[in-house]
Amino acid sequence: MPTTTVDATHDLLRGIARDHHTDALVLTALPDIRWACGFTGSNGLLIAHPDRLLFLSDGRYTEQAEREVQNAEVHTPGYNLWEYVEEEGLLDDVDSILVQSDVVTVKTLHGWRERFPHITWEEGSGLLTTYRGSKSEAEVEKLRAAQKITDTVFAELCDWIEPGVTEREVGAEIVYRHLRHGADTMSFDPIVASGPNGALPHARPSDRTLREGELIVIDMGCFLNGYASDMTRTIALGEPSGEARRVYNIVLEAQEAALHSARSGITGTDIDAVARGLIEEAGYDDYFGHGLGHGVGLEIHEWPRLSYHVTHDLPDGAAVTVEPGIYLPEKFGVRIEDLIILHPDGHQNLTQSPKTLQVIT
Amino acid sequence: MPTTTVDATHDLLRGIARDHHTDALVLTALPDIRWACGFTGSNGLLIAHPDRLLFLSDGRYTEQAEREVQNAEVHTPGYNLWEYVEEEGLLDDVDSILVQSDVVTVKTLHGWRERFPHITWEEGSGLLTTYRGSKSEAEVEKLRAAQKITDTVFAELCDWIEPGVTEREVGAEIVYRHLRHGADTMSFDPIVASGPNGALPHARPSDRTLREGELIVIDMGCFLNGYASDMTRTIALGEPSGEARRVYNIVLEAQEAALHSARSGITGTDIDAVARGLIEEAGYDDYFGHGLGHGVGLEIHEWPRLSYHVTHDLPDGAAVTVEPGIYLPEKFGVRIEDLIILHPDGHQNLTQSPKTLQVIT
Repeated sequence: MPTTTVDATHDLLRGIARDHHTDALVLTALPDIRWACGFTGSNGLLIAHPDRLLFLSDGRYTEQAEREVQNAEVHTPGYNLWEYVEEEGLLDDVDSILVQSDVVTVKTLHGWRERFPHITWEEGSGLLTTYRGSKSEAEVEKLRAAQKITDTVFAELCDWIEPGVTEREVGAEIVYRHLRHGADTMSFDPIVASGPNGALPHARPSDRTLREGELIVIDMGCFLNGYASDMTRTIALGEPSGEARRVYNIVLEAQEAALHSARSGITGTDIDAVARGLIEEAGYDDYFGHGLGHGVGLEIHEWPRLSYHVTHDLPDGAAVTVEPGIYLPEKFGVRIEDLIILHPDGHQNLTQSPKTLQVIT
Repeated sequence: MPTTTVDATHDLLRGIARDHHTDALVLTALPDIRWACGFTGSNGLLIAHPDRLLFLSDGRYTEQAEREVQNAEVHTPGYNLWEYVEEEGLLDDVDSILVQSDVVTVKTLHGWRERFPHITWEEGSGLLTTYRGSKSEAEVEKLRAAQKITDTVFAELCDWIEPGVTEREVGAEIVYRHLRHGADTMSFDPIVASGPNGALPHARPSDRTLREGELIVIDMGCFLNGYASDMTRTIALGEPSGEARRVYNIVLEAQEAALHSARSGITGTDIDAVARGLIEEAGYDDYFGHGLGHGVGLEIHEWPRLSYHVTHDLPDGAAVTVEPGIYLPEKFGVRIEDLIILHPDGHQNLTQSPKTLQVIT
């Protein structure tokens, strides 16, 4: 939460505890911890005690936690953080504490209850969902920087790709170029699905060789400074069939219409319906078997979703993908995906790559 | 579990349920599901009903599940698998079921209890740990194939690396070469820690430029056909200092001694103590701040651990890393790691890369 102060973070977390009628709150989901206090390591706890905001990690992270953690007292004891909490009496004056029931395992919660029998352990889920769902300006800039790498890689790829290379080779190239351009890691393994493989929305790169006249679905993204990018483009290797061009144009029209309708204050179902309606009109509604999009931030898939059955209003500052697709079994697939930020009067598109069909010759 | 039959898998899972006095068992951990029935996708359930072994996934995985799942009936309904279990009455004649309490979240278990109030939901942890801990011959061959890629990349890297490249560039090269040699993905982001960065056991590749005379710690591995490789080598870029050579030789001696002692039927603490004893004798015990090793298989870190406080005997067929290190703050670090399989009379080393200090000139 880069724009807030120590007290604001502590107040926010204390407020969540208060809303659940508890004295304290413990966060154990690493992306939530990162969002609240900046820690990027792989082991940590954030405890909002009534009087103190406590961050704990193990001895491996002493230096890193001191450097990164902005809003909390830092403790980096040995490996067992809860033993330390007990020994130091950090929860001695707490009667009730709220835990993340959608993150904590059944076994872990039993362990806490046994170790601290004087405390009432209350359960809550999605505790930071709506806070994390509205991106700050600093967060939008991080998403934009990650997306910029992906846009650069796409432009390079259009120069590099040619018939005869395999899907795996394209996948390796995508990863390599993201890392060379400064990405910290990939946000997911790239999808490179050529010809009939494109009809599988989650295809993994195979040893299949790319052939002239085929469509290729490329879905890729990276992490930079904690934030993810995510983009899909469908390109043609040489002139595609008339059917392929027609389907491409339907998906593009659906995507543009969904983008045109996208804003905060409406529901994910509303935006999904715009794209789905156009695909249905064109007669391809049986071939668009997934939701329109998902939230992106410190995780590659996060709240909110754009799909049917989503009835809440989308918040100002939501970062979401818009990615309709048509998948024709044993023929080909088309998907086009941008990453956008919602505002009350529209959206800001973080994706710069062209959407007219790129025909590679 | 590639060597067993349909009935053997079902019998094994039913036996675990019986040991916990339940009628049935539900597996929700994906690596456990993959081990038991071969499914490699990202969403699935395996239910060992008294009479049937049921695999469920969502509609995205219809084809893939039919192709991959070997030991169970395959059902791929819409997205909500539990709604389907309820609608189809798949648990109607079950009175009690065992769940993985170290995997399932508190919220998920509440949901199951609400949906199926007639069932007693019992909790068990580490249900498949010891089974997965003893690798079959087919599993050892998969680990060996993954490790072979990593060995190949290391040999290429020794030819490629030179002063002036950055840690990030080396990291990108490591990933690229693994993927080009057929790896499905990386088992973790590579560690490339040069000079003083080597003193941080979990350093991330930075923009630091490699310099003549420095040690570089390189820790890397990939997934191939589901199984992970994991290897660390410390190399020198030109002739290192006398102290660096001395510390390298201590770590190498400790690693070789630990390997010499490694076998099944002793504890992880026993093997750890061999390496730790030699490092202590040399006066560096304050600078070896992590355990000696960990299990490797369908996950990069799995049971069993080699470290203090591990009192169980190691099973025949355990796949573990042996990776002592010495980390001198602000100076350099040395770690040497092999991946081995334990047997009653010793071990089989899957790692082929040389361990004499590679001095790159």
